[in-house]
Amino acid sequence: MRTAFHSQLDALLHTMADMCELGGTAMERATRALLDVDIVLAETVISDHRDFVTLGVKAENDAFNLLALQSPVATDLRAVLGCMQNVGDVFRMGVLARHVADIVRRRHPEPAIPADVNDYFAEMGRIAVNLGHNAKDVVLSGNPDRAAQLACDDDAMDELHRLLFSIVLDQKWSHTVGVAVDVTLLSRYYERFADHAVTVGQRVIFQAMGAPTG
Amino acid sequence: MRTAFHSQLDALLHTMADMCELGGTAMERATRALLDVDIVLAETVISDHRDFVTLGVKAENDAFNLLALQSPVATDLRAVLGCMQNVGDVFRMGVLARHVADIVRRRHPEPAIPADVNDYFAEMGRIAVNLGHNAKDVVLSGNPDRAAQLACDDDAMDELHRLLFSIVLDQKWSHTVGVAVDVTLLSRYYERFADHAVTVGQRVIFQAMGAPTG
Repeated sequence: MRTAFHSQLDALLHTMADMCELGGTAMERATRALLDVDIVLAETVISDHRDFVTLGVKAENDAFNLLALQSPVATDLRAVLGCMQNVGDVFRMGVLARHVADIVRRRHPEPAIPADVNDYFAEMGRIAVNLGHNAKDVVLSGNPDRAAQLACDDDAMDELHRLLFSIVLDQKWSHTVGVAVDVTLLSRYYERFADHAVTVGQRVIFQAMGAPTG
Repeated sequence: MRTAFHSQLDALLHTMADMCELGGTAMERATRALLDVDIVLAETVISDHRDFVTLGVKAENDAFNLLALQSPVATDLRAVLGCMQNVGDVFRMGVLARHVADIVRRRHPEPAIPADVNDYFAEMGRIAVNLGHNAKDVVLSGNPDRAAQLACDDDAMDELHRLLFSIVLDQKWSHTVGVAVDVTLLSRYYERFADHAVTVGQRVIFQAMGAPTG
């Protein structure tokens, strides 16, 4: 029998899953804005962030009400608390996408990154969409294979982050210090984005196994 | 009459308050390691981080058990959930202090930052200890004046962060791109450290006022 609790938990999981997908899409669009020096798209990412914040506050309130009104125990309690913690991580994914868009806006009409690192950021953007998409799937399915895929994508992101560092620090770096600073910060935003997606996946899987959520 | 719930909540708040203080101390020591090129102190910050992680896991488990065993409602429920969210933020404060120590270790025996920005980082380290200390006070007292002090310190940190940016991006910057990258990342770590301390303070105060925790 489906209880009111499980219906509400399902709704909460779907809100959170939507946030994962939206976070990935925001990062993908911020990446396109970065690569195409597209100020309109950057502004869209920045203004759409408000909806993301609204969704986050709604998810948090829904989780609170679920706990307050249904007093779940054991696995159900763990599931709601996990959602609450995950909202924090997914929320940061959206913030990091906005940070990328902020840099695009700050440098406009100049490109924030030089053409010779475009491919790295294109790849980071591609991985970010995957991360958002797979985080959504993990949230809805609890599928450990998808969580493992998140970890793989995180490794790929870390590798790109390291590569970009070595490019910026190479003697052959021919751009300004300002460009190096932007590339460093941007790269860090993508790397943190991936970390948050992995944390969401790990938390879902640990919960399913009944282990601590931390 | 003091209930078992309130005793346990008090214990949880004290654990979290200790984490705030420890986070501030870790950042202060990491800063000294940075300024004095002190590898031993940097290694201490890195190895002590394990205890910080243990404390974070304990706090999270204690919060979970408090919810599972005592089924608090209304304000009490909100207080425990706030603790749980705050653990996440305080935990990041410790991670960011470790990141500073990591950079000291990576650059050793070279200093990670040039002497001409030492004063800025010394000030950031000083503010970080204050933030940790005041976050602890807010957690234990719920005093809104202390929370306001956190916001002031955060503003001061943001200002230093902006100043460091303008120094790195100035035409007169005479150091390598690598040093600019390190200064940028370090400055970002301090700025994020302050953000987390402010979030903890805001959450405590909003809770006391019965507003949403997000």
